[in-house]
Amino acid sequence: MSSASAEKIRAFRKQKFSVEQLAERIINSDKTALARGITLIESNQPKHRTHVSRLLEACLPHSGNSFRIGVTGVPGVGKSTFIESYGKHLLSKGKKVAVLAVDPSSTVSRGSILGDKTRMESLVKEEDAFIRPSPSGDSLGGVSRKTRESIILCEAAGFDVILIETVGVGQSETAVHGMTDFFLLLKLAGAGDELQGIKRGIMEMADVVIINKADGENQKAAKKAKAEFRRALHLYPPKKSGWQPQTLLASALHHTGITEIWELIEKFEEEVKANGYFTSNRKEQNRSWLLQSIDEQLKNDFYQNPAIKVELPKQLQAVAENKTTPFEAAKYLLDLRNKK
Amino acid sequence: MSSASAEKIRAFRKQKFSVEQLAERIINSDKTALARGITLIESNQPKHRTHVSRLLEACLPHSGNSFRIGVTGVPGVGKSTFIESYGKHLLSKGKKVAVLAVDPSSTVSRGSILGDKTRMESLVKEEDAFIRPSPSGDSLGGVSRKTRESIILCEAAGFDVILIETVGVGQSETAVHGMTDFFLLLKLAGAGDELQGIKRGIMEMADVVIINKADGENQKAAKKAKAEFRRALHLYPPKKSGWQPQTLLASALHHTGITEIWELIEKFEEEVKANGYFTSNRKEQNRSWLLQSIDEQLKNDFYQNPAIKVELPKQLQAVAENKTTPFEAAKYLLDLRNKK
Repeated sequence: MSSASAEKIRAFRKQKFSVEQLAERIINSDKTALARGITLIESNQPKHRTHVSRLLEACLPHSGNSFRIGVTGVPGVGKSTFIESYGKHLLSKGKKVAVLAVDPSSTVSRGSILGDKTRMESLVKEEDAFIRPSPSGDSLGGVSRKTRESIILCEAAGFDVILIETVGVGQSETAVHGMTDFFLLLKLAGAGDELQGIKRGIMEMADVVIINKADGENQKAAKKAKAEFRRALHLYPPKKSGWQPQTLLASALHHTGITEIWELIEKFEEEVKANGYFTSNRKEQNRSWLLQSIDEQLKNDFYQNPAIKVELPKQLQAVAENKTTPFEAAKYLLDLRNKK
Repeated sequence: MSSASAEKIRAFRKQKFSVEQLAERIINSDKTALARGITLIESNQPKHRTHVSRLLEACLPHSGNSFRIGVTGVPGVGKSTFIESYGKHLLSKGKKVAVLAVDPSSTVSRGSILGDKTRMESLVKEEDAFIRPSPSGDSLGGVSRKTRESIILCEAAGFDVILIETVGVGQSETAVHGMTDFFLLLKLAGAGDELQGIKRGIMEMADVVIINKADGENQKAAKKAKAEFRRALHLYPPKKSGWQPQTLLASALHHTGITEIWELIEKFEEEVKANGYFTSNRKEQNRSWLLQSIDEQLKNDFYQNPAIKVELPKQLQAVAENKTTPFEAAKYLLDLRNKK
């Protein structure tokens, strides 16, 4: 980034905006305003939540018009390189591309996702691309909410395709699957049984499995892995979307596979928009998100209660040792909370 | 049942016992007292919950000594016949066998599980067998709790093996998996692809897949299905128990397979008791059960609130139509509850 533009951003950041002004700038595709809006979303200060409410309210009517793609795969599989190649391909097709990351903080994942800015350095320079690393220091529930809200701002800012990356810490793939239209699993061809070691449930969510780094000496193993995944994908029950999950090979090194992936996702988008799944799935995701938000808040209220924090470990221990029943222990803890 | 013993039961039922007396009778293997204890557990009256607490407290020190087997499969797969054959085999080995069912009420499932008493008529007559159908008119959460508590009473009454049956309504397999030591999936060999149509996640829970009714013209298809399941089971990541799930053929018609299944489960029990998984899994199940009980209670309190019952559907609709964000809707509903 040039020092002139850095200065411009600093100057912008010093400016005071009303939330409504910020929303207007976002809707006018101002990327710096978008970044600022997301920073507001990421704030854990209660007063900022009121601002966020108003900001989202203003942006909501302009949202919903993107195609949202979830990208997952273990660290080292080449997600950043893939997203960069795919993002640039989308830009060449005239699309505006936003990249968000979903992963609760951890010393392992924080550095390896998007913190390393050099990773997507050619994409980050593009006018029609926007890249935002994962908010740190937060629970998955918190990060999920923040990412979903960020999607709304990105859509209001006119981004056509939103790529949401996860390395799959805890339940983060499920969270990403629950906020996207298409779910892409990146894999490497390795030695031996490719399917061993895949986290439970991940395969069932995938709309496409891409065997990455299918180049050089890897090519043979990659083809074998592709066949194995293809067979495994056929074992799952049909998807509500009517889509039969596919397998593809890709190599960032040789710039191969990207066009095929793009065509595949275009085909998927056409199909699910034609058969009504796209809309019904979005509605269902919104409804689930409401119920999840309620559950999270209920649990938060309970488990953050100081008396519960002290007594829960004792009750867990008693229950593990069969000294009390889980139902009795739950009753004791719930009564304790109500006394406060 | 003879009319004399029916009279005896009626006389017993009229007697007034203290909870402590009831517990003592249960611990002394009195099946009528056990049935009465379970009826108490199944009661939804708040005053009975206090009795249940004392009953469980008295029975807990005598519980935990059974081997718990979950049995699942779609209606028509032959669960009742299988349980009857397997139960009788266990009796012949000197075991005491209890059969419980977990399924929330539904017009479909209620009749078809154990309500039809004639189904296990030879097992039900045995002195060392105890059969109890699913409590009706309840949520899965409620049935789960009641079944878990019933397990404690059955164990206190000296039952060595507890078979817990489910037809897999909603999440009931997961509930049963979370309260058993071994999980058995019954399947029929059908036409075509056997693995299509298996509910998500079920295969991953199975310790054994039994192809039932492997007789007559079915035999060839059954063998093919067995091979297919065997291959599919190998695709999953290794289990924490260290156990590699198996596939077996069974035919109640020809009385085949039962000995093999018994040997297999014996082998499993030996292995997991030797490697420590049995104990650690039981502890973990108890801890999870506590957390589930808390979550259920929190949700119950919330969703049973009259104001929430009125407003939730409206907010779900608004959210589906993108008129508000799920987070805002959740906040609105939670604030509403706190006002009450």
